[in-house]
Amino acid sequence: MPMLQVNLLSGYSGQLKNRLSRALTSVLAGITQAKPEAITVWLHEFDPDCYSRGGESRTPGQEMGAPESIVLDYLTAMENRDLDTARKHLADDFVMTFPGSGELGSLEQLVAWSKGRYRYVQKTISTVDVAYGMDDITVFVLGTLRGEWPDGTEFEGVRFIDRFVMHADRLVRQDVWNDLAIAASS
Amino acid sequence: MPMLQVNLLSGYSGQLKNRLSRALTSVLAGITQAKPEAITVWLHEFDPDCYSRGGESRTPGQEMGAPESIVLDYLTAMENRDLDTARKHLADDFVMTFPGSGELGSLEQLVAWSKGRYRYVQKTISTVDVAYGMDDITVFVLGTLRGEWPDGTEFEGVRFIDRFVMHADRLVRQDVWNDLAIAASS
Amino acid sequence: MPMLQVNLLSGYSGQLKNRLSRALTSVLAGITQAKPEAITVWLHEFDPDCYSRGGESRTPGQEMGAPESIVLDYLTAMENRDLDTARKHLADDFVMTFPGSGELGSLEQLVAWSKGRYRYVQKTISTVDVAYGMDDITVFVLGTLRGEWPDGTEFEGVRFIDRFVMHADRLVRQDVWNDLAIAASS
Amino acid sequence: MPMLQVNLLSGYSGQLKNRLSRALTSVLAGITQAKPEAITVWLHEFDPDCYSRGGESRTPGQEMGAPESIVLDYLTAMENRDLDTARKHLADDFVMTFPGSGELGSLEQLVAWSKGRYRYVQKTISTVDVAYGMDDITVFVLGTLRGEWPDGTEFEGVRFIDRFVMHADRLVRQDVWNDLAIAASS
Amino acid sequence: MPMLQVNLLSGYSGQLKNRLSRALTSVLAGITQAKPEAITVWLHEFDPDCYSRGGESRTPGQEMGAPESIVLDYLTAMENRDLDTARKHLADDFVMTFPGSGELGSLEQLVAWSKGRYRYVQKTISTVDVAYGMDDITVFVLGTLRGEWPDGTEFEGVRFIDRFVMHADRLVRQDVWNDLAIAASS
Amino acid sequence: MPMLQVNLLSGYSGQLKNRLSRALTSVLAGITQAKPEAITVWLHEFDPDCYSRGGESRTPGQEMGAPESIVLDYLTAMENRDLDTARKHLADDFVMTFPGSGELGSLEQLVAWSKGRYRYVQKTISTVDVAYGMDDITVFVLGTLRGEWPDGTEFEGVRFIDRFVMHADRLVRQDVWNDLAIAASS
Repeated sequence: MPMLQVNLLSGYSGQLKNRLSRALTSVLAGITQAKPEAITVWLHEFDPDCYSRGGESRTPGQEMGAPESIVLDYLTAMENRDLDTARKHLADDFVMTFPGSGELGSLEQLVAWSKGRYRYVQKTISTVDVAYGMDDITVFVLGTLRGEWPDGTEFEGVRFIDRFVMHADRLVRQDVWNDLAIAASS
Repeated sequence: MPMLQVNLLSGYSGQLKNRLSRALTSVLAGITQAKPEAITVWLHEFDPDCYSRGGESRTPGQEMGAPESIVLDYLTAMENRDLDTARKHLADDFVMTFPGSGELGSLEQLVAWSKGRYRYVQKTISTVDVAYGMDDITVFVLGTLRGEWPDGTEFEGVRFIDRFVMHADRLVRQDVWNDLAIAASS
Repeated sequence: MPMLQVNLLSGYSGQLKNRLSRALTSVLAGITQAKPEAITVWLHEFDPDCYSRGGESRTPGQEMGAPESIVLDYLTAMENRDLDTARKHLADDFVMTFPGSGELGSLEQLVAWSKGRYRYVQKTISTVDVAYGMDDITVFVLGTLRGEWPDGTEFEGVRFIDRFVMHADRLVRQDVWNDLAIAASS
Repeated sequence: MPMLQVNLLSGYSGQLKNRLSRALTSVLAGITQAKPEAITVWLHEFDPDCYSRGGESRTPGQEMGAPESIVLDYLTAMENRDLDTARKHLADDFVMTFPGSGELGSLEQLVAWSKGRYRYVQKTISTVDVAYGMDDITVFVLGTLRGEWPDGTEFEGVRFIDRFVMHADRLVRQDVWNDLAIAASS
Repeated sequence: MPMLQVNLLSGYSGQLKNRLSRALTSVLAGITQAKPEAITVWLHEFDPDCYSRGGESRTPGQEMGAPESIVLDYLTAMENRDLDTARKHLADDFVMTFPGSGELGSLEQLVAWSKGRYRYVQKTISTVDVAYGMDDITVFVLGTLRGEWPDGTEFEGVRFIDRFVMHADRLVRQDVWNDLAIAASS
Repeated sequence: MPMLQVNLLSGYSGQLKNRLSRALTSVLAGITQAKPEAITVWLHEFDPDCYSRGGESRTPGQEMGAPESIVLDYLTAMENRDLDTARKHLADDFVMTFPGSGELGSLEQLVAWSKGRYRYVQKTISTVDVAYGMDDITVFVLGTLRGEWPDGTEFEGVRFIDRFVMHADRLVRQDVWNDLAIAASS
């Protein structure tokens, strides 16, 4: 039943507006327990000369891509060991933690740390969740890993979850959990 | 800059309205990159005789508690091995997965499975994230574990993350990842 | 899909608001061909000090009953030959036309004209339709008549339709059509 | 005094929007007794990517012509005995009733039934009323008939009313009342 | 024709709301040249738990009296030489200018300066105008002066205008023009 | 905190809309004491076929220039003794009053009256204030005068204030106060 009207400056892409409508609907559905199909969202778009704050016209900020796309693009680049592409998505103070690694501050550190643990590893992603916080966006990627141990034997179906914290369109933190230690010892 | 008006049936608690305003603001901030302090949310409340769909008045559904509170209540009950309280939060088809456990279908199965792995374990929670999906809510709890191994030695600072899927106010799935296997072998 | 918000002064009864919501929904459904269950109506009620036109507060007018109730009340009074009650619903310049009667200007004229045509007549109403015009409301009542001819034989199932024009809550015109002439000659 | 805002998908014709504004104004005037010139209606039009229900964009349905135009087009075709044109406006289960005819299920039945009753008949229409119901639209056409009896003598000024029930843009029912029986016997 | 909706926190007095509606109507009438009686203003009031900025509830500020009342109260106190009451309306950096006085920084300076110019002076106010600026409110008071010259002869009908600049509810500046010099020399 | 939505017919210039937004913001800031930067104004523009009053579409009136521009244009023309240009801004019943002049009804009268008082006079404008009333707009222009006395000596820094009453885009009244009498006698 809830109905939502958003006043926005015009200029956002159809993709962003769709993402926005869906995310607002999800929040309303989750919190009020109304059925999504009973929730309507209307986006009113305003030209800059039809909006003012403090009597001054304003312009919309730079449009940001979908958080999940940014994360997936980063993960693909990392699987391909294309560090240059991956690095474009990172904030200056990016840190990451893997099982047993402690905090690593650069992709080079990660590559060094992972050497000797497996020949390669690939993700099969089952789910991506996005949590919007007031200042940051958190993206969760989960699924299973497959790859080869240093001795050439293969593994697959190993559960993992990656948690990314994004500030604006940059990744500031990656935390990884998985069952590789159990798989390795079995 | 974006401004949001929500039409709602009256009767929701101040807590729910606050949670709603914050979650909607977070979505708007995250997707449009507007600063939260420039985002206003106005909730218009309507008495049942001032709202109709298809010409019929409607009443609001049952109010649901905050998802993070439900999850934390469940986790506390489990730490205290108060299975009756914990079970009240579970959907009939609840399943859970722990590192190396495969899918478990009941709390009794979990208790049996964990026996012999540790004497007890306690969570220190650092962060809770909530992701609203169209049909389900996903809650992530992360932090560190401390406890005692079967031989009485203690451990602490072991990273964990729990992912809960909620449908309405019931938990339908719990997936757990942690570094206990690494800690045990070190 | 259409969504409708009405700003109204507060003070109208729940019955009037329900009638209003239903009539607005019907118009939207009829003209846009949207399904009624996809049409929402929200009535915003305002206290007098929250509304102004030309800078002056206003108060709502006298609330009027449902047009169909006024018409049915009039018809019942006429069937009971309770002319005083019936007359309360009539505008000063009320006129009526029955099959073959020409325009009649008073209830007394009607009673005189109908004398000798039947001993009594009663309506079984199947349908009432209400058409809202910019200045007047038109109410249609249809169904069948039963009664007794002057010679005491009975009739029933005779089709009729009455058309009433209302201005504010008063009837200004009644036009009647029926198959009594056919029934009488058969 | 009441003010009405309608959120609509864009794409409707100016004619439909005018019809909608007038019909909504009529309902508001009739039910609240506010003067029409004090009633304002604002139609907000939204592009498909600015509206969602359940998080999905929607498109407006097929635009339907004015109900009164459809009815008048049908009546003109019938006067011209252009049954093919008339038939295009009929629903599959269309039925009609004339004074003394009982229910007729096809235009051919009507032509057969009317044969021998008059050589021809033409309508002079004085008024058309439209009543919007939740599922159907009812259109009333009234005025006088003129024509020729089978013996070639003429008649005119005979009162009639036709009631049409429309579902979407198709006629599902026509009920006719008139004073032809009285005129024939006089 | 323009229609104006204001979202406000609830709690403002009826007087303030009336003042607000009239001032907004005046601006709309003046700038769009619409007739005031065609301009409607609707004030939506929101409880604090129905409004948020940046996800935080807000409370309305202290309600300020009408600027013209504050100015008139000050002028009355000055006519009565009730400097204590007058001083309550002044900002710390209040300055005033009278014809030929230069800038005066205190009421005591004014009293000293005016000594010897007239025995007393009283205002007959014909008009008060209020101009709202983004940061300040300017109030203009005009009319005629009457009083006694030092030699006891009387004067009247001497034109004057006072211009007051207010910041919040305090006077920061008073500028006075009048024809006393002409009257004195005639 | 207050948020303001204005429904307007489309067609107004960006300048008018900016003037409108600023003036409405000023009124809201002045009366509610909210900070301007917390006040948002949204102008919804409607095509004529999306607005109706009394069921009839309307068109916007002729757009009027900024009141302060009209006044300044008039003052410049007067300084240049370009009476034809100045006269275009005057209503038929325009009157003006200068210190000691009484009411003057035409520009020619003014020119005659001022002859012998000064050779020329020029304004240095420091401030323009605009006060919107329900029927009229009042514009105040203030600053200092400089010029030459009849004997060729110069003056400057003489305080003045002009008050203009405008009805629609025409000046109906000008009242002038200044310290020329004091300056002349010193």
